[in-house]
Amino acid sequence: MIYLDHAATSPLRREALQAMLPFFSEDFGNASAGYAAGRKARAALERARMQTAQAIGAQRQEIYLTSGGSEADNWALFGVAGARPGRRRIVVSSVEHHAVLRACEALESRGAEVIRLGVSQDGQVDPEEAARAITEETALVSVMLANNEVGTIEPVAAIAKLAHAKGTLMHTDAVQAIGQIPVNVGELGVDLLSLSAHKFGGPKGIGALYIKSGTRIDSLIYGGEQERGLRAGTENVPLAVGMGEAIAAAASELEQTAARERELRERMIALCLRLPGVRLNGSRVHRLPGNVHLSIRGMQSALLVTNLDMRGIAASAGSACAAGSIERSHVLEAMFPKEAGWADLRLTLGPESTQEDVSAAAAALSELLHRGKGEF
Amino acid sequence: MIYLDHAATSPLRREALQAMLPFFSEDFGNASAGYAAGRKARAALERARMQTAQAIGAQRQEIYLTSGGSEADNWALFGVAGARPGRRRIVVSSVEHHAVLRACEALESRGAEVIRLGVSQDGQVDPEEAARAITEETALVSVMLANNEVGTIEPVAAIAKLAHAKGTLMHTDAVQAIGQIPVNVGELGVDLLSLSAHKFGGPKGIGALYIKSGTRIDSLIYGGEQERGLRAGTENVPLAVGMGEAIAAAASELEQTAARERELRERMIALCLRLPGVRLNGSRVHRLPGNVHLSIRGMQSALLVTNLDMRGIAASAGSACAAGSIERSHVLEAMFPKEAGWADLRLTLGPESTQEDVSAAAAALSELLHRGKGEF
Repeated sequence: MIYLDHAATSPLRREALQAMLPFFSEDFGNASAGYAAGRKARAALERARMQTAQAIGAQRQEIYLTSGGSEADNWALFGVAGARPGRRRIVVSSVEHHAVLRACEALESRGAEVIRLGVSQDGQVDPEEAARAITEETALVSVMLANNEVGTIEPVAAIAKLAHAKGTLMHTDAVQAIGQIPVNVGELGVDLLSLSAHKFGGPKGIGALYIKSGTRIDSLIYGGEQERGLRAGTENVPLAVGMGEAIAAAASELEQTAARERELRERMIALCLRLPGVRLNGSRVHRLPGNVHLSIRGMQSALLVTNLDMRGIAASAGSACAAGSIERSHVLEAMFPKEAGWADLRLTLGPESTQEDVSAAAAALSELLHRGKGEF
Repeated sequence: MIYLDHAATSPLRREALQAMLPFFSEDFGNASAGYAAGRKARAALERARMQTAQAIGAQRQEIYLTSGGSEADNWALFGVAGARPGRRRIVVSSVEHHAVLRACEALESRGAEVIRLGVSQDGQVDPEEAARAITEETALVSVMLANNEVGTIEPVAAIAKLAHAKGTLMHTDAVQAIGQIPVNVGELGVDLLSLSAHKFGGPKGIGALYIKSGTRIDSLIYGGEQERGLRAGTENVPLAVGMGEAIAAAASELEQTAARERELRERMIALCLRLPGVRLNGSRVHRLPGNVHLSIRGMQSALLVTNLDMRGIAASAGSACAAGSIERSHVLEAMFPKEAGWADLRLTLGPESTQEDVSAAAAALSELLHRGKGEF
């Protein structure tokens, strides 16, 4: 298999799995228990929390473990809205992940006012539009650090400054950014940040919400006293350990990996743009190193994915979370409203991607496009 | 280590870990993806869902995966309350897990009326009291199948009938019951049931909410289309596979395991009740096979746990989720209001517990009690 869907999920790093294994078997204790096995689990959990914090420039006690990115996003949205009932407005971009957008719809049905910022044809939010939308009545601004479909990097730091000028909290969904670009909560100036381990070589089913010290937020999952009383549920020590190892490794290799992926990406883009009816979506400059997102005229996304699959190439039409949906991607719709007749194809690279992967994918795509859709 | 805290968490079954491993490494695909690696992950996920369904007498499409028991409980409470705004009342027992009770407090702050049913000295809810509390304005009744501290089994089937007579939905937290007693959603007559894998030999960080077909419920975590559009987040295939294997194994061995644990439990109870100032809490009849819960006069729970730990015995004062809390257990408070001067000690058995474990624990406890608290 030539795996070109790293934005959907990534293979678990070997060192992460090795670090996890003891906590599945001999060291299985409950991290909240008062005996030796509990303390051992607790120590591993806190080490993982520290690794996660260090990778994003946070303090250990600002990292709250969740079951993944979707939970972290939902928690940020519902939690801040709940804790700031005097501020009715929420401002988000129109290209956020569905975990943010669907949470916003639920908040609207409960009386919130949601403003959805438009984007340029590159998929970028305009800080000036954000400035007009953010008021003294705004509880939270949520703009993703990098888009999961087209890979566009958003001007989060600039928007965070605008938010803070109005006493508004700033959240960013950094699920796609970690392991691809440097992420530092201090430089971004965010109050809340979501991350998901399986996007950077950690296990599925674990993520975190960074909550800046002093930020008031309601819980999403109530119950026991875990996570400083803010997120209930027995601590998932094995997966936390895997996330800690993966984020530490990803952070230490970031510069190298990004340079390598950027080079592969540029070659892939160059090869694909030679093909007939192919357009690159997203920014040429503010772009994740591993992202190639194409629109192809006169094709159907599902047929394209299926035909690449038959050639051993794993790629996607867009977000895996929206797979099966027959609607056009909301991200493309925001960038190119009401456009029709194009197929979307997302090819996303990872640390183990090779020149051969790029060549094979471009060749397969070329063959498919030259044969034309009639022969599929 | 002599591990006597299975109610807090249990060691992962070997067959569960073996089944999980391929899905961490070679078969890491996103279960929502449209290519071969995605389909393989999807097939494993649906097999695990089927195993989980079969173990509790449900249909595959009635099993919704969650990050564990706390999320499942929160989802049931918030989800039903949200979907039935015309019914303001929620009825729960006063000995529910904090995942239910704290969710109820949050619902109260949003305008719900919560009725907390008292319990007998055995920790049992009286169905007649439940009948008086359940009205046509009641959205949901939530009574746990078995208590996590004292092991008392509740009359859920009887209460479910009363609930349905008023058009009320019935939820049960079966987190402690699975793997200990037979659990069948049809026989219980429940509309919703929570379970957590790590309590029956599966991995931490995964559980499920059974939602009877046709039951209307809001989401707790919004976003992608996973779990039939009701619970967003990339499917946690490795952990789901582990849960499926563990629940299938636990169900097939249930009769044997329960008989064995019951025998060990009775011996443990007999040995402990010979000691000075020791009382057994919970029902002698309606009791989980693996649960021994003692109150010991003139002791402090924390010192007891620490001293047993120094002798290599892992036991707890009560719920691990409330560990570190200085308040008396709400379960004991409901059974014996305003009582003081007793230490609580929970000893919970699992499939790998032995006669030697029981002997060693009873001997250690005897030694501690005969030395008296002054010498701790």
